[in-house]
Amino acid sequence: MSELKQMDYSNLQSLHRKAKEDFNAIKQENLSLDMSRGKPSAEQLELSLGLLNTVNAENIGDNFSVLNYGLVDGIPEAKALFKEILEVNTEEILIGGNASLNLMHDIISKALIKGVLDSETPWGKQDKIKFICPVPGYDRHFKICEQYDIEMISVDMLEDGPDMDKVEELVRDDASIKGIWCVPKYSNPDGITCSDEVVERLAKMETKAQDFKIFWDNAYVIHDLTNNPPSLKNILEECKKHGNPNRVFMFASTSKITFPGSGVAVVAASKENIDFIKSQLSVQTIGPDKVNQLRHVRFFKNYDSILEHMKKHAEIMKPKFDAVLNILDFKLGSYGIATWTEPEGGYFISLNTLDGCAAEVVSLAAEAGVKLTGAGAAFPYGKDPRDRNIRIAPSFPSLAEVEKAIEVLSTCIILVSVNKLL
Amino acid sequence: MSELKQMDYSNLQSLHRKAKEDFNAIKQENLSLDMSRGKPSAEQLELSLGLLNTVNAENIGDNFSVLNYGLVDGIPEAKALFKEILEVNTEEILIGGNASLNLMHDIISKALIKGVLDSETPWGKQDKIKFICPVPGYDRHFKICEQYDIEMISVDMLEDGPDMDKVEELVRDDASIKGIWCVPKYSNPDGITCSDEVVERLAKMETKAQDFKIFWDNAYVIHDLTNNPPSLKNILEECKKHGNPNRVFMFASTSKITFPGSGVAVVAASKENIDFIKSQLSVQTIGPDKVNQLRHVRFFKNYDSILEHMKKHAEIMKPKFDAVLNILDFKLGSYGIATWTEPEGGYFISLNTLDGCAAEVVSLAAEAGVKLTGAGAAFPYGKDPRDRNIRIAPSFPSLAEVEKAIEVLSTCIILVSVNKLL
Repeated sequence: MSELKQMDYSNLQSLHRKAKEDFNAIKQENLSLDMSRGKPSAEQLELSLGLLNTVNAENIGDNFSVLNYGLVDGIPEAKALFKEILEVNTEEILIGGNASLNLMHDIISKALIKGVLDSETPWGKQDKIKFICPVPGYDRHFKICEQYDIEMISVDMLEDGPDMDKVEELVRDDASIKGIWCVPKYSNPDGITCSDEVVERLAKMETKAQDFKIFWDNAYVIHDLTNNPPSLKNILEECKKHGNPNRVFMFASTSKITFPGSGVAVVAASKENIDFIKSQLSVQTIGPDKVNQLRHVRFFKNYDSILEHMKKHAEIMKPKFDAVLNILDFKLGSYGIATWTEPEGGYFISLNTLDGCAAEVVSLAAEAGVKLTGAGAAFPYGKDPRDRNIRIAPSFPSLAEVEKAIEVLSTCIILVSVNKLL
Repeated sequence: MSELKQMDYSNLQSLHRKAKEDFNAIKQENLSLDMSRGKPSAEQLELSLGLLNTVNAENIGDNFSVLNYGLVDGIPEAKALFKEILEVNTEEILIGGNASLNLMHDIISKALIKGVLDSETPWGKQDKIKFICPVPGYDRHFKICEQYDIEMISVDMLEDGPDMDKVEELVRDDASIKGIWCVPKYSNPDGITCSDEVVERLAKMETKAQDFKIFWDNAYVIHDLTNNPPSLKNILEECKKHGNPNRVFMFASTSKITFPGSGVAVVAASKENIDFIKSQLSVQTIGPDKVNQLRHVRFFKNYDSILEHMKKHAEIMKPKFDAVLNILDFKLGSYGIATWTEPEGGYFISLNTLDGCAAEVVSLAAEAGVKLTGAGAAFPYGKDPRDRNIRIAPSFPSLAEVEKAIEVLSTCIILVSVNKLL
């Protein structure tokens, strides 16, 4: 294999012919594969089925209070368990419903109407507010901003997290920048983990807005694929150290530990922030589903067993990630038409085609029966300025399906790239 | 017994002496009774314990999709079941999480930021917006308004619902009035059910605001205490009939059917409204807890069995309501110092003391070990202009405790009333 850009016309033509034949053959197979979302597979869901049995009519015992109203911040046992995951104290955590996205959304919607702890004016009463969006990033974060007319400023993800030179410059001068999204460990979709330096700089940087907040979506906090995972500095402790204790909201959930639809979500922050959230939350609801919290507590018992449980997830996920990487390497090798990340955890592999090819590749793959995340999804307003990023989500399909899908993807990438160069 | 106001001084004095003796005797008992909230009792919770067993590792079957992401509007089986309760079509219902209050809150918060279906301007971008609050009413409705600086206009509850002459007059002339709260059946706390005429007038009245909404919190829709419950006209159908299909949001939940903390909440409205809510909701969450929806579907199977289930609740609740009414009648009889409602369902009895006595009665009862809902709670900003309304919530304590608590309450009412007259 040599770089496509170096190939002469006739070699390109024969490669194109071959890829076209492959593509047509694939189409005959009438595939229907879905790699569009980071959904756990059935095999992964099976790992937690026992959770459904942990609370029943016979063993509910004297836990009747969990069935009734109350405890808007969650049951104490759940706080004790989940505070370990985010490395915070009991008074720094609140246990919510089944979706951390919901917690993030609600904090923002209330910030718009009422402001956050340090706001002089509600965000929504200001002319314009903005969020920094490291790109590529998580589409659902960006959708919240889009829904609420929060202007998004893209900042590139570098190898150790968001481009902090850029971030610092932006927040220092612009009071309308109220927040930054961050998936600090195994970022969606790049799989990047923030370095200690990035965490420190986020915690201590000077912000023009006194009510600037970091939305620290630690969705993959213990979702390692290796035995020697990268460490992530505790940003709440860093924020405290630098005199900005109320700067960060940390989120996590068991959506990809137990069940995506019926897990438990948590938010962690300074006690002052948690008290503030709790006071607002008590107007919104009488309390979360405490029975489901109890199920989780009884299923896991302690933090170590959660970590053991995550190893079983890794055993299922790792071969799929390996398959993606091996096939991409084998099929696209040194053609120089795509680069991709090799994450040590999380749910995604991020692939960049040549500029201007991603949308066409995704569309062609769909034609061949492989559904990928929409091109551009990882960028604000769904627009990838270089039209090159494709998010690969290998968790849901079976290993054989993943292999097939990546072969299809590779063929589509060759086809579109050669077309472009011819 | 004769009316206190007719009694001569010496009779009043001896009544006072007797009440004071009773009160002091009660204090010796060191009671600790809680009648403050409409919480189901342990005995009621036991009725639904079987629900916890309906979905487990062995019987989950091929329902793996309920464990995963998706279906932001709920599982079809849950829609099919719960649409019966609110008498709507499948496309007119959305199944949420565990709290209907949350659904109400979220619709309002999004209305403030983005507006509702028919809004030209988001509610929060307007100088001032107002809600009509029938009084006495549900404190948590009023808290949402208070939290978001929505001005509350009190309108009296009459025997057949809100004072419609007043409501019609208000909404006809004031474009800043965007909504009305209503608990249409067995209202909280009066236990009043809206008459057909009230429902019709709400549906057809002219509103200056084109985006005026009725928040129809049908919390006690099937929570009857008698075999011959009052009927409630379907307001969505009325709204359609009068050309205002998008005027009403109807809410219900199983909080007081199964478990307060882990029930299922629903919102019903025109298809156009539901589609609008759904599109907003998909930005907020990836979906509700579908496993809990499946639990409910499997536990009840059909609407008739829900109604059968409610009869068992009534068997537990009715004796408590009867006890309250009997003791009030026996103790306060024709003294003319209090009036109270005799609801045919719901969770509350509403009592009015002489003007200016409620806060003192509640405080005195607390001193005697009986916790009641705070005086004024049923009014906007917690202020009962006549300081006379007390909400009695007999569901949570045992029958013996209810009896005791109402004896204490009666004694406190006599004491405070006589003091006032002496």
